[in-house]
Amino acid sequence: MEALNKITELSYALDTFYFLMSGALVMWMAAGFAMLEAGLVRAKNTTEILTKNVALFAIACIMYMLCGYNIMYPGEAVNSVWPGISFLLGDDNTVEAVLGSKGDTYYSSLSDFFFQVVFVATAMSIVSGAVAERMKLWAFLAFAVVMTGFIYPMQGYWKWGGGFLDGLGFLDFAGSGVVHLCGATAALAGVIVLGARKGKYGPNGEVHPIPGCNMPLATLGTFILWLGWFGFNGGSELKISDIGEANAVAMVFVNTNAAAAGGVFAALITAQIMFGKADLSMTLNGALAGLVAITAEPLTPTPMVATIIGAVGGVIVVFSIVFMAKLKIDDPVGAISVHGIVGMWGLLAVCLSNDDATLKAQLIGLVTIFIFVFLCSLLVWYILKMVMGIRVSEEEEYQGVDYSECGMEAYPEFTDAPKGN
Amino acid sequence: MEALNKITELSYALDTFYFLMSGALVMWMAAGFAMLEAGLVRAKNTTEILTKNVALFAIACIMYMLCGYNIMYPGEAVNSVWPGISFLLGDDNTVEAVLGSKGDTYYSSLSDFFFQVVFVATAMSIVSGAVAERMKLWAFLAFAVVMTGFIYPMQGYWKWGGGFLDGLGFLDFAGSGVVHLCGATAALAGVIVLGARKGKYGPNGEVHPIPGCNMPLATLGTFILWLGWFGFNGGSELKISDIGEANAVAMVFVNTNAAAAGGVFAALITAQIMFGKADLSMTLNGALAGLVAITAEPLTPTPMVATIIGAVGGVIVVFSIVFMAKLKIDDPVGAISVHGIVGMWGLLAVCLSNDDATLKAQLIGLVTIFIFVFLCSLLVWYILKMVMGIRVSEEEEYQGVDYSECGMEAYPEFTDAPKGN
Amino acid sequence: MEALNKITELSYALDTFYFLMSGALVMWMAAGFAMLEAGLVRAKNTTEILTKNVALFAIACIMYMLCGYNIMYPGEAVNSVWPGISFLLGDDNTVEAVLGSKGDTYYSSLSDFFFQVVFVATAMSIVSGAVAERMKLWAFLAFAVVMTGFIYPMQGYWKWGGGFLDGLGFLDFAGSGVVHLCGATAALAGVIVLGARKGKYGPNGEVHPIPGCNMPLATLGTFILWLGWFGFNGGSELKISDIGEANAVAMVFVNTNAAAAGGVFAALITAQIMFGKADLSMTLNGALAGLVAITAEPLTPTPMVATIIGAVGGVIVVFSIVFMAKLKIDDPVGAISVHGIVGMWGLLAVCLSNDDATLKAQLIGLVTIFIFVFLCSLLVWYILKMVMGIRVSEEEEYQGVDYSECGMEAYPEFTDAPKGN
Repeated sequence: MEALNKITELSYALDTFYFLMSGALVMWMAAGFAMLEAGLVRAKNTTEILTKNVALFAIACIMYMLCGYNIMYPGEAVNSVWPGISFLLGDDNTVEAVLGSKGDTYYSSLSDFFFQVVFVATAMSIVSGAVAERMKLWAFLAFAVVMTGFIYPMQGYWKWGGGFLDGLGFLDFAGSGVVHLCGATAALAGVIVLGARKGKYGPNGEVHPIPGCNMPLATLGTFILWLGWFGFNGGSELKISDIGEANAVAMVFVNTNAAAAGGVFAALITAQIMFGKADLSMTLNGALAGLVAITAEPLTPTPMVATIIGAVGGVIVVFSIVFMAKLKIDDPVGAISVHGIVGMWGLLAVCLSNDDATLKAQLIGLVTIFIFVFLCSLLVWYILKMVMGIRVSEEEEYQGVDYSECGMEAYPEFTDAPKGN
Repeated sequence: MEALNKITELSYALDTFYFLMSGALVMWMAAGFAMLEAGLVRAKNTTEILTKNVALFAIACIMYMLCGYNIMYPGEAVNSVWPGISFLLGDDNTVEAVLGSKGDTYYSSLSDFFFQVVFVATAMSIVSGAVAERMKLWAFLAFAVVMTGFIYPMQGYWKWGGGFLDGLGFLDFAGSGVVHLCGATAALAGVIVLGARKGKYGPNGEVHPIPGCNMPLATLGTFILWLGWFGFNGGSELKISDIGEANAVAMVFVNTNAAAAGGVFAALITAQIMFGKADLSMTLNGALAGLVAITAEPLTPTPMVATIIGAVGGVIVVFSIVFMAKLKIDDPVGAISVHGIVGMWGLLAVCLSNDDATLKAQLIGLVTIFIFVFLCSLLVWYILKMVMGIRVSEEEEYQGVDYSECGMEAYPEFTDAPKGN
Repeated sequence: MEALNKITELSYALDTFYFLMSGALVMWMAAGFAMLEAGLVRAKNTTEILTKNVALFAIACIMYMLCGYNIMYPGEAVNSVWPGISFLLGDDNTVEAVLGSKGDTYYSSLSDFFFQVVFVATAMSIVSGAVAERMKLWAFLAFAVVMTGFIYPMQGYWKWGGGFLDGLGFLDFAGSGVVHLCGATAALAGVIVLGARKGKYGPNGEVHPIPGCNMPLATLGTFILWLGWFGFNGGSELKISDIGEANAVAMVFVNTNAAAAGGVFAALITAQIMFGKADLSMTLNGALAGLVAITAEPLTPTPMVATIIGAVGGVIVVFSIVFMAKLKIDDPVGAISVHGIVGMWGLLAVCLSNDDATLKAQLIGLVTIFIFVFLCSLLVWYILKMVMGIRVSEEEEYQGVDYSECGMEAYPEFTDAPKGN
């Protein structure tokens, strides 16, 4: 009996440690988004996007602590649509409670909070890239408050908190829908309200490419995200402390990596065929597309199938980015394609390997998340537009938002062009 | 009995692994300091600060192995002020010794060494930023030898090695005082002996801002430090292998993150109010200030209180940086404010949440560390100044220390200005 | 009995988790190589080297899944030289199989695959730096297919898969030979077939240094590799779940760090003496040399001996880089010296601390790996040269391979020199 209790304690410690390490890896994704986005914008808008990324992470942590976590995982939900709200972070598990729970309580509830709080930051990071180079900083941060405190937790509750999407059999292992599609949808609403960057489209509607200023940073960001994704997907198994769970976590790691590899390879080939060059930015987006695609189900595919799911994501993302540009949805980093369009593919691809999935439930989940997040976000962006304005002036955009919003340059010694380059 | 012994072995393995992962995260902070500092200096002084950061880490590892560790954690101390010295790294624990220790020996002593050695490197990294852009490289490295081999271990012994500050009830969980205040104090002494950079102050004493050359690097450095801090604070619980300890480590992770978030938010708002702009460098310093502030006690506050402790740190750091500049203490990266002034706040803030803390003991600890480190450092800097000189010539400073100290440029193709820009 | 089975399950989970975390750290080394190499080439060749690094990682993952893993670790080998091939990734371990194995099966086989697959990517990353700035992207990727699918796994089988080198008593803990010498040898063959960069040698054979464009990136890459190496060496103990193994892993961490520190210090001093300056790129190569040197045996030396083994590596690498340049082996990042020459030193240094090692066996292993990899690689490079060509045109090299291979610049706003700078 003493031995069994000690084993329970040790299991609890291992699962908690696994959660904390996974959460730390997901937190690291914040750096990945910051570097990716800073690499893909122009030098004159770099300080602002860095500031946005640091600040949104802080806001996400504060808002999710204040109310988001309790909306998403309510102690006692009112019903399967409306979770209720309580504002305090609960106490942790005592030894007696854990031993008495017969295995139901097997990790620290604070480690769960830590793991979840970095997820909401990920969703919000997706938005920041799409609205880059022309949005007012403080309007963006105001949106972040609503998004991380309410919009994300609400739809998260419907699936992961035990709400109605979960009841319908909608499957989303680590969040192709709940995190990535959610973030991309909020971004899409923002881009529609905001409009394209000056100079992106010529007088006859032709698309002008605006190259990113620092490709090593973008590459670094992609590698950071790839690494962080092992925590994102790997931690979403939620348990590692027995043989079956350890095997499952290992499978999730292998498949996550395989899908990213498939995405890279497919996007590289697709870009070579379409553009005649090995386009680095498409290759990077291919890696991320592979990762997003496998996120809804990284456990049941074989590694070969995971590679293919990622590769399809890699092909989709190249076409989607080209198509979005033609639709005049101006997304400087391709976030809507990577996280939204490929997120949808990921949700549907669950049906390929998981027998518990139904196309119907996946579509209901996909449509529900999209419509709910799109309408809420559109409303919030419009309110912000009316109340404080969301777009910088034409003059400020020409000068670069670094100057107007942050008052400092990102690379004062490297770009000697006059302001407004 | 066989089962209980196996459980003891497994606990030992988990605690050791937790220590090693924590240590790896702290080692990663060395990269964070290197990137932060490289981002905040001018292009012409970048190679030198990178060289310093790599070299100081190596020196810290070697000196701490040779004598520092044994000074700080003596097998048999002479008394509570003087630890004695022994130069060899001891053997590790045998199975018999661990099983016979009744739980006293619960992790590999080499994993403890690994965790401790990366801490001393952190303390030394703090110094390097403050003296940037005008110090001789080899004088700095000579100081690093004394600091990491003797000064840091000596005051570390007084608290963590079981010396007199520990006996007095001084509390410092992960080192707001022992690491951060210590490093900042050595930096302060260095800056005083060294003097301000040419061009920092005008003829009438007005302060000229000298912007950093690469803000994405500075942001990356901050994110690296944020991530590494989960090892720094999280590992300082020293044990994770039962329910109570696992909950404690989870609380430390949550509070560390919450304090950083609070620091970001508070510094961003403070800077916006004071300067009318969302100042990125202040925001980054706010994150670090939040982290430093919570480091003395990341376990007992609730997450909300931790956020507030971090936020106060974020406000303090903005005012402190402005104030230091006025005092003509020229600290290019704000290290003295972030680690020193906010480190003091962290030590005092222990009293807010930990009933075992007394303001008296905290003040004694704070003052002891400050005076001891300041006087020792001042002495060492003066000796170095006399023996080899610590400041480059005016001509060399104008050209950039990269040229005089390292013979190479950091960005030879990006800055086409003549030498001496 | 129930308790003992649960302990076995928990041990299995801990060892699997340790493998997965180690593998994640090694995966992170891919980012390290990408940043290191991007920092050490010229701006006009940066996009291409980033593309190569991302793509080779993907190719390594796919090829190793398809056949490499099964060649290297065959279920039933044909004999000790020829492993046989099977193309599918096997199933994972069931609870029954694990409990029935009496401890032989103690971690998830998929976690082993994950750990191994990131190793093969490391070997391939070594090649990419040496052939930088003049090789055709697709020729390089074609080589990567053969290298990661066949050449690396074949010689890996001879040691780690239980082949004839293992039988001869050749010792190589984590791959100074199997990974680093192997990668460097393939690189050497490539450089010989490819020839030096235009402008590297003057008409009278004098060596022109070509400085890297971004030293902070190179430094970041080095720190990433240093961190990742804790997974590379630390994970190669393969087990952590009892006292002896936990102590061993801790020793590996401490020695890995000590050797890197020794390498930094020795290379810094050597460069200062030889060139009169604290050469950063030599210092970084010193860190990597220390790490490569200790990789063949990070367990048996004391930390002091590990520091010395690393320091010798640091001295060797400085002389080797200078010597290679004189031999007209043009290796822009010093990869052949760091991983090849120092890898050889690492293999020989095993004899210093491990009584089971014999100089004869170490030399046989060294020579076998070198000759096999060199001849295979030379053949493949020649075939590629004939079939598709491996070198860009003189005009393309002058313009930079970013333009010809990837169609985009890495830093479009920082380098305003005309194409062909």
